[in-house]
Amino acid sequence: MNKLEIPKNHPRYESLIRRNRLIEFYEKGIVTISGLISHGRGEAFDYILGEKSNDYAILSEKAALGLILKSKKPVISVNGNVTALADDAIIEFSKKYGITVEANIFHWSQERIEKIVKHFESKGLSILGRNQNMRIPGLESNRGRCEFEGIFSADTVVIPLEDGDRAEALIKMGKNVITIDLNPLSRTSRAGHISIVDDVNRAFKNMASFDRDESISIYEKFDNSKNIVKILEFMSIRLSSLKDWPDNL
Amino acid sequence: MNKLEIPKNHPRYESLIRRNRLIEFYEKGIVTISGLISHGRGEAFDYILGEKSNDYAILSEKAALGLILKSKKPVISVNGNVTALADDAIIEFSKKYGITVEANIFHWSQERIEKIVKHFESKGLSILGRNQNMRIPGLESNRGRCEFEGIFSADTVVIPLEDGDRAEALIKMGKNVITIDLNPLSRTSRAGHISIVDDVNRAFKNMASFDRDESISIYEKFDNSKNIVKILEFMSIRLSSLKDWPDNL
Repeated sequence: MNKLEIPKNHPRYESLIRRNRLIEFYEKGIVTISGLISHGRGEAFDYILGEKSNDYAILSEKAALGLILKSKKPVISVNGNVTALADDAIIEFSKKYGITVEANIFHWSQERIEKIVKHFESKGLSILGRNQNMRIPGLESNRGRCEFEGIFSADTVVIPLEDGDRAEALIKMGKNVITIDLNPLSRTSRAGHISIVDDVNRAFKNMASFDRDESISIYEKFDNSKNIVKILEFMSIRLSSLKDWPDNL
Repeated sequence: MNKLEIPKNHPRYESLIRRNRLIEFYEKGIVTISGLISHGRGEAFDYILGEKSNDYAILSEKAALGLILKSKKPVISVNGNVTALADDAIIEFSKKYGITVEANIFHWSQERIEKIVKHFESKGLSILGRNQNMRIPGLESNRGRCEFEGIFSADTVVIPLEDGDRAEALIKMGKNVITIDLNPLSRTSRAGHISIVDDVNRAFKNMASFDRDESISIYEKFDNSKNIVKILEFMSIRLSSLKDWPDNL
């Protein structure tokens, strides 16, 4: 169903593979229609970034790892798009550091939560999400559902590809919030204590590879607002230059 | 199905209405899954542009109208996303100037062509597309299908939201090509003789409103490459400035 045949030497091979994963997970009922459109927005920002982790992304990822390592109870929130895009990278990262993962979705249904939890279980990682009997204050109805043992009692939450309202509500709960969002100007990115502007798969792969001590020391000096300004400058320079653009868009 | 309730005073009301239209036309079988992801990419670029037609977009639209008015046989190509986003604006524009419209789709099927043609017919405009027995040279299989009376024999084609391969193939056929694409760096935008970097609905609405003589005189002096560079500079300045961003993304 509209899946593309992608030659391995295509200059945007990785991006097209990711797009096919999204479509596949849409057909499985894990990704929603809104998730497909959101992914397109992410693609555009990633394309402006050059589809790789730049120095500012790496710095924020080191700071994020530092904060996670300093936290008593860090939790990673995963939704449909995150599952499609970064399942293996999250499993590797969460196992390496023993970090709790919780399925958490904007368009909530027990069925979709169940599918996400089962997907991770089938790959060898137990995650939370089946018993979401707590609420994030300030979010109406199902949008605030979370588990007491997971996000509700966490001191630090990693929220990749999260909605702005939820990001802000978690901040109001007093949690440390690490966002992963390719749009540096989204409400989510602007709400984060540490805002990673990078592809979610690259972000978790990078975080799994960094040195602990270096990351903690970077966290202690990290200035998030300054880093976002640097990313905007970087994107601005990329956009104003017609050279270095791939030829297959 | 994931359609949003949108308050009229939402700062990004128009954008969210457009997104709902896409979802609705996906459910009708007119928009494809790939079309949903493409729309997300468009949203991101439009958001950087400020979700309105800037001076460079307006200039290119005046030049485009000038070229259309100077052409012997201009044809507007419409696909699923274009139908969802700009049906009424295209009907108004094509009736005002008596311009042929042809349904032309990347993921070709007779059924989807039929749905698009019928959609326009139900709104009072007959369009081509049912008898695509010609081929655009250089495009394999169904991707090159077009009508002899339409795109095949046109001297100027307007290709909103078009794939890069098709844009380039039309140029090779010797046609004047007017592109409408929110990504100024896409192959489609870079292939166009006149590249409109604007939302497709705003573009057709604007073109229907311009003065004929002014548009022809702008066309005669128009420098497309220079205009694209100006748009990139504009986007670059927008991105590097944290102020003036809406608060509801």
